[in-house]
Amino acid sequence: MLVVMQATASPADVQRVCDAISEMGYQPLPMPGAQLTTVGLIGNDRRVDGSHIEALPGVAEIIYVSSPYKQVSREWRPANTLVTIAPGVTFGGSDVPVIAGPCSVESEQQIIEAAHTVRAAGAVALRGGAFKPRSSPYSFQGMGKEGLELLRRAKAETGLAIVTEAMDDEGAQLVAEYADCIQIGARNMQNYSLLKTVGKLRTPVMLKRGMAATVQELLLSAEYILAEGNDQVILCERGVRTWDPSSRNMFDLNAIPAVKKASHLPMIADPSHGTGVRDRVGPMARAAVAAGADGLLIEVHPDPNRALSDGAQSLFPQQFTELMGELVPIAAAIGRRITTPGAR
Amino acid sequence: MLVVMQATASPADVQRVCDAISEMGYQPLPMPGAQLTTVGLIGNDRRVDGSHIEALPGVAEIIYVSSPYKQVSREWRPANTLVTIAPGVTFGGSDVPVIAGPCSVESEQQIIEAAHTVRAAGAVALRGGAFKPRSSPYSFQGMGKEGLELLRRAKAETGLAIVTEAMDDEGAQLVAEYADCIQIGARNMQNYSLLKTVGKLRTPVMLKRGMAATVQELLLSAEYILAEGNDQVILCERGVRTWDPSSRNMFDLNAIPAVKKASHLPMIADPSHGTGVRDRVGPMARAAVAAGADGLLIEVHPDPNRALSDGAQSLFPQQFTELMGELVPIAAAIGRRITTPGAR
Amino acid sequence: MLVVMQATASPADVQRVCDAISEMGYQPLPMPGAQLTTVGLIGNDRRVDGSHIEALPGVAEIIYVSSPYKQVSREWRPANTLVTIAPGVTFGGSDVPVIAGPCSVESEQQIIEAAHTVRAAGAVALRGGAFKPRSSPYSFQGMGKEGLELLRRAKAETGLAIVTEAMDDEGAQLVAEYADCIQIGARNMQNYSLLKTVGKLRTPVMLKRGMAATVQELLLSAEYILAEGNDQVILCERGVRTWDPSSRNMFDLNAIPAVKKASHLPMIADPSHGTGVRDRVGPMARAAVAAGADGLLIEVHPDPNRALSDGAQSLFPQQFTELMGELVPIAAAIGRRITTPGAR
Amino acid sequence: MLVVMQATASPADVQRVCDAISEMGYQPLPMPGAQLTTVGLIGNDRRVDGSHIEALPGVAEIIYVSSPYKQVSREWRPANTLVTIAPGVTFGGSDVPVIAGPCSVESEQQIIEAAHTVRAAGAVALRGGAFKPRSSPYSFQGMGKEGLELLRRAKAETGLAIVTEAMDDEGAQLVAEYADCIQIGARNMQNYSLLKTVGKLRTPVMLKRGMAATVQELLLSAEYILAEGNDQVILCERGVRTWDPSSRNMFDLNAIPAVKKASHLPMIADPSHGTGVRDRVGPMARAAVAAGADGLLIEVHPDPNRALSDGAQSLFPQQFTELMGELVPIAAAIGRRITTPGAR
Repeated sequence: MLVVMQATASPADVQRVCDAISEMGYQPLPMPGAQLTTVGLIGNDRRVDGSHIEALPGVAEIIYVSSPYKQVSREWRPANTLVTIAPGVTFGGSDVPVIAGPCSVESEQQIIEAAHTVRAAGAVALRGGAFKPRSSPYSFQGMGKEGLELLRRAKAETGLAIVTEAMDDEGAQLVAEYADCIQIGARNMQNYSLLKTVGKLRTPVMLKRGMAATVQELLLSAEYILAEGNDQVILCERGVRTWDPSSRNMFDLNAIPAVKKASHLPMIADPSHGTGVRDRVGPMARAAVAAGADGLLIEVHPDPNRALSDGAQSLFPQQFTELMGELVPIAAAIGRRITTPGAR
Repeated sequence: MLVVMQATASPADVQRVCDAISEMGYQPLPMPGAQLTTVGLIGNDRRVDGSHIEALPGVAEIIYVSSPYKQVSREWRPANTLVTIAPGVTFGGSDVPVIAGPCSVESEQQIIEAAHTVRAAGAVALRGGAFKPRSSPYSFQGMGKEGLELLRRAKAETGLAIVTEAMDDEGAQLVAEYADCIQIGARNMQNYSLLKTVGKLRTPVMLKRGMAATVQELLLSAEYILAEGNDQVILCERGVRTWDPSSRNMFDLNAIPAVKKASHLPMIADPSHGTGVRDRVGPMARAAVAAGADGLLIEVHPDPNRALSDGAQSLFPQQFTELMGELVPIAAAIGRRITTPGAR
Repeated sequence: MLVVMQATASPADVQRVCDAISEMGYQPLPMPGAQLTTVGLIGNDRRVDGSHIEALPGVAEIIYVSSPYKQVSREWRPANTLVTIAPGVTFGGSDVPVIAGPCSVESEQQIIEAAHTVRAAGAVALRGGAFKPRSSPYSFQGMGKEGLELLRRAKAETGLAIVTEAMDDEGAQLVAEYADCIQIGARNMQNYSLLKTVGKLRTPVMLKRGMAATVQELLLSAEYILAEGNDQVILCERGVRTWDPSSRNMFDLNAIPAVKKASHLPMIADPSHGTGVRDRVGPMARAAVAAGADGLLIEVHPDPNRALSDGAQSLFPQQFTELMGELVPIAAAIGRRITTPGAR
Repeated sequence: MLVVMQATASPADVQRVCDAISEMGYQPLPMPGAQLTTVGLIGNDRRVDGSHIEALPGVAEIIYVSSPYKQVSREWRPANTLVTIAPGVTFGGSDVPVIAGPCSVESEQQIIEAAHTVRAAGAVALRGGAFKPRSSPYSFQGMGKEGLELLRRAKAETGLAIVTEAMDDEGAQLVAEYADCIQIGARNMQNYSLLKTVGKLRTPVMLKRGMAATVQELLLSAEYILAEGNDQVILCERGVRTWDPSSRNMFDLNAIPAVKKASHLPMIADPSHGTGVRDRVGPMARAAVAAGADGLLIEVHPDPNRALSDGAQSLFPQQFTELMGELVPIAAAIGRRITTPGAR
C-alpha cells in the first residue's frame, strides 16, 4: 500500500499518516519526492483496509500495489491449473473442450435429442439448466430435480459430462450429486454464501463473470472458492452490461488474456450470452478460441423456435456442426486442439 | 408484444410468425405498414417469452409493450405504498426518515456510541452490518449473530429502529428476529432464492439496486418479494458502476423519479456508497432529498479514522449533525419533512 | 510518476527502469519495499509520458501521482474563478444564474416568445441553438446565421444574455460576434482544434462534458482553452452514457463536488439533457442546486408539442415558472441565491 | 414510427396522437390491442422526430421501426462496398489487409525504418500520426505537415499505402494531398463539420468508432460522409469505454458482425487501442480476424521503449512478424486471405 500525499500536505500530515500505519501494526516508510511525498506500508499482508487513511488531512490517494487476491494468482502458482470434470474433459491444458446444449432442460425427449446432437458435432460436455435464474418471477424457472434426473439419463446415453447451474446452498448439494461441474451464474458471482458452499464441495465449479464485474472482482470471487479448499475452478466470460442496444451484452474477450496472465485458472467463453443473437455466436466462438479461451459454452437446441428460453441465441444443430468444423483450424493455428469425444 | 418484420419480409414470413403466435396460444394481429409489417399478439399475460420468434426468417425485432412486472407497478396500485418499519418511521409518505450509522458493527461501545450520536442529530433508524459481503474473503466479514445482539442493545438504549443486512436464507431468518428491516445488498439483488425467502417473511425489506441493474431489473427483483406475499419493500439507489475513476460509483438520482413514476413502492438513497467519498456525501444527500427520495441511508462513524470498513465515506458525527440541519429546509421546499425522533 | 515493479522483478529490471528515467532527463528514485520495489521520478513536469516504461521487463504498473492538468487546477489557483458573461450574470460566486430557452431557434416568434417567458420566470440568460449537432444528417440542423440574428433580437427585447453553440472554427468566430457565451457541445468536447480556437477568443466559453468523458478528461479539455489564454470557462454536466434504457442519459451529479474540489472553474448542470424526460427535469434541477451547481441550463419551449427538436424534454412555460419557485428556498438552504434579472 | 399508448390512455388521448401525426403531414393508423393501443405512422421518410408526441398525455413510448440511416444500410445496397485505397489494397472483399506502423511519426529514420519493418512482415499500408489528438495540451501533438512529408517518403521507399489522421478541415485538405486514406479519430466521430468536409473530398476515409458510440451512432456518422457524396468509407472498432481498470478499453468485437449485417461498408479492427497492452494485441488481432474483420490496424514501433506515445501498446517488430504468421491460417479457416504486398 502506498499513501500519496497532496502537494500541499504539511509534515504534520505526513506524520499523522505514519502514525496511523503504525497503529495498524505495520511499519511506515515516508518517501519525500520533488512535488509530493508518498508513504509506503511495509509488511502488507493483503488484508489491509486503508480506507480510513484515505480520509486523513493531506492524503491524495491510496494505491494498493499488491493484488488483493492470493491463491488464484499466478504469482502464487505459476503453472496452469488443469480442471478435469470427466475423463478426457480437461480445461487449462492445450485441449479446448466444448460444452453445448440447450438453455434449459425442458423434457426428456428434448435433452436426450440435444445430447446426441451436440455429441455428434463434437461437444464433450452437455449444458442445460434445471434451476434457472430469471429476471421475472413469472418466467419459466426450470424443472428442478426432475431436470437433474433427465441430465443424468442424457449422460448415460451419450457419455457427455454434465454442467448445470446451482442457485442456492441446497441446490448446490443436489447438483453436486448429479453433475460433473457446478455452474455459478453471473447473477450469483458475488453471492458469497453460495461461493463458500461450493468451495467446501469437491466438485469442479464453473464461475461466470457478473454483469458488471471487473476482472479483479471475478478473481476475488474465485478466491472465495479456493479459500475453502476447492481449487477446481473454471472461469467464464459471458458478456457484460452494455449501453449499446445493438447487443444484449458486450462480449469482453480482452478478459481472456487478462485473466490468463493474472491467474493460473482456466478461462472459457460463452458466446451465446456474450452476443444474445444467433448470427453472432459463430463469429464470436471463433474469436474466443483465437483469443486463447480454454473452452467454449454454447447454446444449441434441437428446435430453437420452440425453446422455452433463450431461443434467439440458440444455434440450430446444423449451425453448430458447421461451427465446430471452423474451430478446428483456428485452434490449430495457435497450437491447440478442440477436444474430441472419446470412443463409446 | 409486437413483432416488427424486416422491410424485405415475404408474406410467407409474416404467416410463419402468425402461426408461431397461434401455436403459443395467442391471437396474432398482422398490421401492414408503408415500409414494413408488424404483428401484434393479443392476450399478452406478461409471461410470454418471444425469443424464438425473434429468430424466424424476416423478423427484425420483438418489442414488449407491457411492462414485465405487475404487483410493483403503479398501474396495478396507483397510491403510494407506505412501509412502516417501527412506530413513527414510515417510508413513502410525506415524511423523509433518515437511517444512519456505521458500515459494520464493530464493538458494543462503537455501536452504542454511534446510535446515541445519530439519534441526537435526528436519525430515526440505525444501520450497521453484522453480516458483511466483502469482495475479498480476507476482509473483515462482520460479527455475525453477536453483532445482531449488539444492535438489539443499541435499540433498547435509543429507541432507534434497526436496519441490517442478510446475505443468505439462514441469515435472513436470524435478521428477521432482531431487526425492523432486512437489507438485501446490491450484490444479492438477483439472488432469487434469498428474495423468495424474505418474500415469505413478514419483516419489511430494503432492497438495494445492483451494481449494474436497470430500473426495470430492480423492479423485477422487488416483484419476486411481492409475489411471495410481502409488499413491505423499500427500494434503494446506492450508485452504479462507473468508468470514471473520480468516483467509487455513479450516483444515479434519475432513478428516483423514474422508480416513483413506475412503481408505488418507496425509494430511498444511499449517498455514502453512491459517492464513496466523505466530502460528497453531504451534497449528494441534499440532492437526493431535493430529487424526491423517500428516505436516506448514511454512514456515520464515531471515529471514521479507525473504522474497520468504509472509513473514507463515513461522516464524522459533527458533519452528520450539520447535514441534518441543511436537509430540513430542502425537504420543506418540496412540501416534505425530515422525520424527527419521537420523545423517549 | 511512480513505477511499481513486479514482486518478481530482478535488480537488473529495476536498474533498467532507472536508466530509462535518466535517459528521459529525470532523476530516478528507487524505493525498495517489503514485497516489491517502486521507482519514483523526480522533477515530473506533468508532461512525462511513461508508457514505454510500462512495457519494460519487471514493471507492474505506472502511477501518475500529479494531476495531468495545471491551469484549471485548484492547486494552481485556490480561489473560485468568476465568469461574468453579462452584467449581473456571474457564475462561480454565491449566485446561481439560470439559463433557459428552447433547444433550437426555430423562428422569430418562437425565440422572442421563449425569451419573454423565461425572463418572466426568472432566467437571466437565453439558450437556443442556431447550429445544431444532430446524430442524423437528415435531422434539422439549425437556422445558422439567421438564428444568431434572431437571438440578437431576443436579447435586445429582453436584456437576456445569450448562450449558443458553435460547432467549428468558422462558427465560433460568428457566435463570438453575436453571443455572450459560446457553448461547446458534448460531441465536441475533445475537438481540440475547436478548443484552441475558442481559447484564442475573449468570449466566455461553456464546455459541456462528453458522453463518456471522465472528470479528468473534462478538465484536460478545459486546460486546452486556458492554455490558449482564455480562462473564462464554465463547465457543464449534462448526463453521460447509460446502459439503463429507463433514462436517455445518466445524470452524474457526483461530478459537481468532484470538479469543484479539483478545479477553480464554475460547474453548472443541464437537467434537460441529463434526464431526457420532462417529468424528471424539475427533480433533477432541484437536485443539482442542492448539490452545489453554479448554475442551470434548462430547455423551455413556448409550445413543446411543436418543437423541432428535444420536445419531450422541454418544459412548458408554466412548469418552468413553478420550478424557479422551488429553487429559491433550496439555494437559500445552502447559503446561495438564484440570480434575479435586473430591472429594465 | 409506432406510438405505444399507456394501458390507461383514453380515446381522446389516442385521437390527440392521431391529430399530431396528421399535423406533421403523415397518416396515422390506430391499432387497438387487448391491453393497449398503438398508433402507426404511415409514410415515415426516416426524418421524423417524434419526441414531442412522446410527451402527449397517454403516450407510453415511441418506437422507431425504420433505421434512421439510409445510404449506409445494407437494405439500401445489399452487396459489400469495396474500398480500394491503393492498388492491391482493398477492404470489404475476401482479402484482409493489415495496416501497421507507429502511433506517431517521430523522425525520418523512425518512420522509414517502421515502414520497411512492417512491409517485410506483410503489412500493405503504413499508419503513423502527423496530427495527434491528445487528452492533454502538454503532450506531444505530432509533427504536422513535416510528418506528412515523411510519410510520403516512406511510401516512395516501400510502396505502402498511407493512412493518417486529420483533426480539422484544414488538416483534412492537407492529409488528402499526402495520404491514401484519411483517418477520423474516435474523438471526432461526431465532429459533423469534419465529417462533411471529408464527405466532399474523394479520398477514402477510415472512421473510428467513438469512445462510447453505439453501432447506430457510428453508422449515422458514416451517413454524414456518404450524404456528401463520398462512399469510400471504412469503419473501425477500436475499443470503447470500460469500467474495468484491467483494460484501457473494452474491445467490442460483437460490433463486427453487427455492423456487417446492418451495413455494406467494410469494418476493420484496431486491437492496439482496443486493448492498450502489448501482450493482448496478438490474441485480439487473431480474434478480430476470426470474427470477420475486413482488416486490421496495428501499432508497431521499431523501438517501442523509446516511443513518444502509446509505447506500451506498440508491438516489437519481431512480435508483429510472428503475429502475421498466426493470422494466415485463421483467415484461411473462414475462407479469407491476409492481403500480401505486391512485388516491387
